[in-house]
Amino acid sequence: MARTSLSGFPELLPETRMVEQRAIDSLRRSFELHGFAGIETRAVEPLDQLLRKGETSKEVYLLRRLHEESVEGHSGIGLHFDLTVPFARYVLENAGKLSFPFRRYQIQKAWRGERPQEGRYREFTQADIDIVGRDALPFHHDVEVTRVMAQAMARLADPALLGLPGFRIQVNNRKLIQGFYAGLGVPDPEEAMRIVDKLDKLPAEKVGELLTELEGIDAAMADRILELAGIRSAEPAEVARAVRDLGVTHELLDTGLEELLALLSACADLHDEHVSIEADLSIARGLDYYTGTVFETRMTGYESLGSICSGGRYDALATDGKTTYPGVGISLGLSRVIVPVIARTGLRASRPVPSAVLVAVADEESRAASEAVAAALRTRDIPCEVAPTAAKFGKQIRYADRRGIPFVWFSGDEGDQVKDIRSGEQVAAEAATWAPPRDDLVPQVVSEP
Amino acid sequence: MARTSLSGFPELLPETRMVEQRAIDSLRRSFELHGFAGIETRAVEPLDQLLRKGETSKEVYLLRRLHEESVEGHSGIGLHFDLTVPFARYVLENAGKLSFPFRRYQIQKAWRGERPQEGRYREFTQADIDIVGRDALPFHHDVEVTRVMAQAMARLADPALLGLPGFRIQVNNRKLIQGFYAGLGVPDPEEAMRIVDKLDKLPAEKVGELLTELEGIDAAMADRILELAGIRSAEPAEVARAVRDLGVTHELLDTGLEELLALLSACADLHDEHVSIEADLSIARGLDYYTGTVFETRMTGYESLGSICSGGRYDALATDGKTTYPGVGISLGLSRVIVPVIARTGLRASRPVPSAVLVAVADEESRAASEAVAAALRTRDIPCEVAPTAAKFGKQIRYADRRGIPFVWFSGDEGDQVKDIRSGEQVAAEAATWAPPRDDLVPQVVSEP
Repeated sequence: MARTSLSGFPELLPETRMVEQRAIDSLRRSFELHGFAGIETRAVEPLDQLLRKGETSKEVYLLRRLHEESVEGHSGIGLHFDLTVPFARYVLENAGKLSFPFRRYQIQKAWRGERPQEGRYREFTQADIDIVGRDALPFHHDVEVTRVMAQAMARLADPALLGLPGFRIQVNNRKLIQGFYAGLGVPDPEEAMRIVDKLDKLPAEKVGELLTELEGIDAAMADRILELAGIRSAEPAEVARAVRDLGVTHELLDTGLEELLALLSACADLHDEHVSIEADLSIARGLDYYTGTVFETRMTGYESLGSICSGGRYDALATDGKTTYPGVGISLGLSRVIVPVIARTGLRASRPVPSAVLVAVADEESRAASEAVAAALRTRDIPCEVAPTAAKFGKQIRYADRRGIPFVWFSGDEGDQVKDIRSGEQVAAEAATWAPPRDDLVPQVVSEP
Repeated sequence: MARTSLSGFPELLPETRMVEQRAIDSLRRSFELHGFAGIETRAVEPLDQLLRKGETSKEVYLLRRLHEESVEGHSGIGLHFDLTVPFARYVLENAGKLSFPFRRYQIQKAWRGERPQEGRYREFTQADIDIVGRDALPFHHDVEVTRVMAQAMARLADPALLGLPGFRIQVNNRKLIQGFYAGLGVPDPEEAMRIVDKLDKLPAEKVGELLTELEGIDAAMADRILELAGIRSAEPAEVARAVRDLGVTHELLDTGLEELLALLSACADLHDEHVSIEADLSIARGLDYYTGTVFETRMTGYESLGSICSGGRYDALATDGKTTYPGVGISLGLSRVIVPVIARTGLRASRPVPSAVLVAVADEESRAASEAVAAALRTRDIPCEVAPTAAKFGKQIRYADRRGIPFVWFSGDEGDQVKDIRSGEQVAAEAATWAPPRDDLVPQVVSEP
């Protein structure tokens, strides 16, 4: 399982790394099927890029070459703490070579020097999708990223693949909140939103108190704000009625509500036992750059991790002064999902090696013949390895057994045989034609606490 | 192509990232077919691990949290500069949970703060395979890693996959050299080896001069040393004769020569138009920890890059005082190979998006119907995207054309049609059954300077 010898830098054993790798492969497949191109950005960014948003600055790792003698004590670069800042920079740098709207996915590590805890690491893998337009980006792309990520998560939750716990996507819309607050007469909607965002950490009463401490918010307004934040439903009609019932009107509220309802309606067909999508009007996302749709996601049974997949619409993901690039994106915290599930459930591959077959070696003189059998199996995509020593066959079988390799192959003058060491069944076989059952070809994902 | 806005940190556009991704996928497949398990180690190591070998210490990037106030000005950790140091640490930490011999591959980024040039970057991807034993590791594993990497490189060079230039693997054996030097009476074989290792940078005469400057080496001995280093052949018998003709005898020389000949013989069947394996007795590898087989690799036409794939046998990859873990491994400099080839030959994917089909949108009201067509295609693993706007069909076709998407799908009341926009051919089709030709399903790798 995850090592903790350097706190916050989890490492996986081969049988759990296979689980993570399978998750990455599945995400990649989901994203590519939807036309998203994969990119990677360098691990480092100039400090001025990384420190634009004050709130995360304390978590940045700066780099310094061992013998560097700069006055600042660093090289002016640091490790990226997310994939959005680098992506915005990449879009600006390559704008002339990209076609817009530009769809990209990016599955990469990021680093933050914060205090480690379950689901929160100093090194972690994120899986991001974003769609970026030049000057404009129609709203239907908000629907698109929601659908793509919902389907990607549904695959991860599919018991046939990884069987991760279910995912609950919670959607809101910043225009709706801003319009509502403006209609109410809240003087500083941004500040009020930041307080409402604490609802998952503080009780509603306490949040109400904090709200009334703001200038221009009385108890009645605070109540309305909390009532709005209490609305939670997957049914567009129910959401619409609940919002309207609060009696606040504002043009921006109408636009935001319309977008939220459109998103819910367009995703109604995606609900299944693994994934649900619902409006949760308490979701505000602390980050200032979101301007419309906002997402968070909870994993069933792992609510203490907080949101494991978040994002939203930003009308200015990037700008070079002349051109503005609006975007909508969502970021899945892969390490935040995988490492805790592995720790709690014992999720792992059924064997720590890819090999489906161990080719036995009768004596060192015939090692080349065993290698030839292995080579023949590999031409038909059967992963295998050759026994490391020409020990007694019993010992070679135990070697396979310890690794969970299901089949052992014996070559001989009277023809080859292959033994299923689980059942003990041994049959005549030819390396040019024999194949293991499909389920044995690659390791399966199993759960064993 | 690769951006140079931060010197030494190359970034790829989507169409070239696809080339790199395909190389990674192919390497992974090759390694897994041979029973190697994939692992990743964290990007950082404690400084004492990183600085054990003095020679690379200047290239290490130290990490410091922005507000860290340690006396040293860093966090005591730095980015790894290769994958061998972290792997040795991983083996020691997890020895109780691994089965030996342990085969692993690791495809990951590493960082060095050295001066960037073609093929040499500050951030780069390495693909390593190693086999590690506990206490002992038979020689046939030297053959195994050579064969696995040779076959992995042959796949990369296969025109049907990436069509990279050919690879020439050069093998030597440190026991052979050490035994030869001992038989000659060279007082400090290590130092002599370090000088011979300069043969690819300095003319032989100059190297000869440097050798005679060492204590106890006269001109005749230097000549023998250079004659040995001049031996180059893929034929075991020829190598044996050339070495024997020099008239030096020593037990260690015999052992090393025997191993080298065994390796050449065991790899004789792998020679093809893409990969060759030959003895080159000038290869010494500067690193002290190699104790037997050593490898380097040149890429045809890119000799100026130096060795792009190197490694060897180390009798003590790791040790915890009680137990010693011998290993043999080889490390392919993927960035060193891919980035220059992309720059020089224009190697890239035939389109910058995975999509094989653009599903046209007649009007925004029917977007959901177009989405349904796309969903049906995706269930049969056909990557596609839906047009971003309900523009005139001509404009939607140009949208596809700019991205190299070969097919545009039109839905209509009188049935669906799909158009191959290269030929203009348009046919009736059903989303539940139609599929593009195999070559169009995923982007092809093309070369266009």
